[in-house]
Amino acid sequence: MTAADPSQSYTLPDPLPLDGGQVLAGATIAYQTYGELAADKGNAILVCHALTGDQYLASAHPVTGKPGWWERMVGPGKPIDTDRYHVICANVIGSCMGSTGPASTAPDGKPWGMRFPVITVRDMVRGLVALLDGLGIARLHAVVGGSMGGMQALSLAANFPERAARVLAIATTARHSAQNIAFHEVGRQAIMADPNWRDGNYYAHGSAPDAGLAVARMAAHITYLSEAGLTEKFGRRLQDRSAKSFGFDADFQVESYLRYQGSGFTRRFDANSYLYITRAMDYLDIAEEHGGKLADAFAGHAMGKGARFCLVSFDTDWLYPTAESRHVVHALNAAGAPVSFVELSSPFGHDSFLLDVPALDRVVKGFLDG
Amino acid sequence: MTAADPSQSYTLPDPLPLDGGQVLAGATIAYQTYGELAADKGNAILVCHALTGDQYLASAHPVTGKPGWWERMVGPGKPIDTDRYHVICANVIGSCMGSTGPASTAPDGKPWGMRFPVITVRDMVRGLVALLDGLGIARLHAVVGGSMGGMQALSLAANFPERAARVLAIATTARHSAQNIAFHEVGRQAIMADPNWRDGNYYAHGSAPDAGLAVARMAAHITYLSEAGLTEKFGRRLQDRSAKSFGFDADFQVESYLRYQGSGFTRRFDANSYLYITRAMDYLDIAEEHGGKLADAFAGHAMGKGARFCLVSFDTDWLYPTAESRHVVHALNAAGAPVSFVELSSPFGHDSFLLDVPALDRVVKGFLDG
Repeated sequence: MTAADPSQSYTLPDPLPLDGGQVLAGATIAYQTYGELAADKGNAILVCHALTGDQYLASAHPVTGKPGWWERMVGPGKPIDTDRYHVICANVIGSCMGSTGPASTAPDGKPWGMRFPVITVRDMVRGLVALLDGLGIARLHAVVGGSMGGMQALSLAANFPERAARVLAIATTARHSAQNIAFHEVGRQAIMADPNWRDGNYYAHGSAPDAGLAVARMAAHITYLSEAGLTEKFGRRLQDRSAKSFGFDADFQVESYLRYQGSGFTRRFDANSYLYITRAMDYLDIAEEHGGKLADAFAGHAMGKGARFCLVSFDTDWLYPTAESRHVVHALNAAGAPVSFVELSSPFGHDSFLLDVPALDRVVKGFLDG
Repeated sequence: MTAADPSQSYTLPDPLPLDGGQVLAGATIAYQTYGELAADKGNAILVCHALTGDQYLASAHPVTGKPGWWERMVGPGKPIDTDRYHVICANVIGSCMGSTGPASTAPDGKPWGMRFPVITVRDMVRGLVALLDGLGIARLHAVVGGSMGGMQALSLAANFPERAARVLAIATTARHSAQNIAFHEVGRQAIMADPNWRDGNYYAHGSAPDAGLAVARMAAHITYLSEAGLTEKFGRRLQDRSAKSFGFDADFQVESYLRYQGSGFTRRFDANSYLYITRAMDYLDIAEEHGGKLADAFAGHAMGKGARFCLVSFDTDWLYPTAESRHVVHALNAAGAPVSFVELSSPFGHDSFLLDVPALDRVVKGFLDG
């Protein structure tokens, strides 16, 4: 770790078995912690990050200098209260902020590139559980996550039912839909169409597939926002001009905003990681991993043992709409697991879990402290 | 016209004035007709095509060999009955199937490329009206279109109220929303990120920006379908395999389908035309063109003069949702224009106007024959 990167890291003592049949030896997990761990190690909360998130949950990002991605939720006196809880956030396997991924060095001394094994959300969770083992945390007070973070929370509950007392899954799903896969495939094709991608072997070259990655991010970003939210935020307002240019500059504010989102993203994210993590999400189908019935995946949580669950969806989230959360709730009900569920109203679409939604704060605090 | 291309064409005798302030001299409009024109020229119906459509409405496409894009709707005994009506469909200015666009030769003998003037939907309509002038058709029995075709129908009604007795606008809008613009901007950025685009000067080179254009088409294609329709058509079914490959091939049918849609599109469409036509659609705001109030745009249709209108939306169309049609209907009501409106139920999303929706057939026939 350099001085600019305050995160801790843990190298797994054992090879990590992967759903694809391979094992990943010597994998490193980079993580951050906030708040003190109690002597009995009973106050730990694992927060799982989304696709392009990282361990900088509640502290400045070392590359962008921006605040942590969930500072509004995590900190002293905040809904996830670091005066009470020891909060852990780890960069997932396959990502690019210190945990082992395609940009990491393979055993042959060269970057993995596309030789990195394809991973699943369950593989990410296996890595997180190995980290918890290393930290000596047998049972979490809670596992919490939004979007892909929620997928990890559900996967941890399904595969390691004894490891968390509470499971809070926000704006998420237990399986990727055809439309979810379709949007990810557009992003992957945009990256792979960029000649600078070079079949993933761009690390030794001066240029990365930034143009393709920016397009992928732009397409994805639209899915994170609601139509009404976009209209409210941008409408058809022009950017720094009083009339249409009759050209191909970013006339509209929404165009300028998307271009900014796309280019900014390339400065902090690795294109191959984007390929691997979107693939992992597309492969997600927790029911399929457990014989085809989602209720069976949660059998370890029948009344009196296992975890309590809380599912939260947002009414304007069209990426992982309420029906997906309800599907999980029905399975938990069928499994006899204790679950509460709420659909919150918010104008922000899928990104609501990251934004100012006071009702979410209350739900999170109530569930964790209860 | 070659033998392989049976469409007719008309070169406008006068320069075409454009909203951007330029004029386009010597523009050609390629078109197709179906059914006989009555002696009084009173039975003509103009069908306007969508973004990537063309004049091959009810006859085989000369490049793909596929049936016309609306053969289910147009033909002898069909809802737009060519035994009764003379149906005209013209390729819009800016497109690439015979009408003048960026791939056409500019006055200096070289392809226009990005020197082609930026056009608007109203400019396309000006070209269509000039064609009608050339054909001696003073007043259409009807102007009909879905998606961008519906935008043209509404624009014709707003700007040339005396030219059509009936206006049928399907699955469309009078203004492009922030989300509409955002998706188009992703497509444009994908094209422009392709090194083969060469700032639009690719015609003399052996390679066009096919990779970028395919990504643009893939992203757009998702918006043409409903989430439920994608789930029903593809779900999470695998393509030609019994298990996940743990690789980056098209494991899922929806991936394979999208890739096919993307690559097939590049064989029949010009990337620069895609830039120009999406730009024209993004610029659409019929209210803005008429002082800011949509009702004022339709003032020429107050009771007893002008046209009768019919608006049709589909309940699963999230690209141009029912609210957009309703917005137009309210403006027509305010203008005192006769209008009927129906939201049809269909699983197919925006593409419903092209697909098997028997209720649409009945609405179209009833409105045109009534």
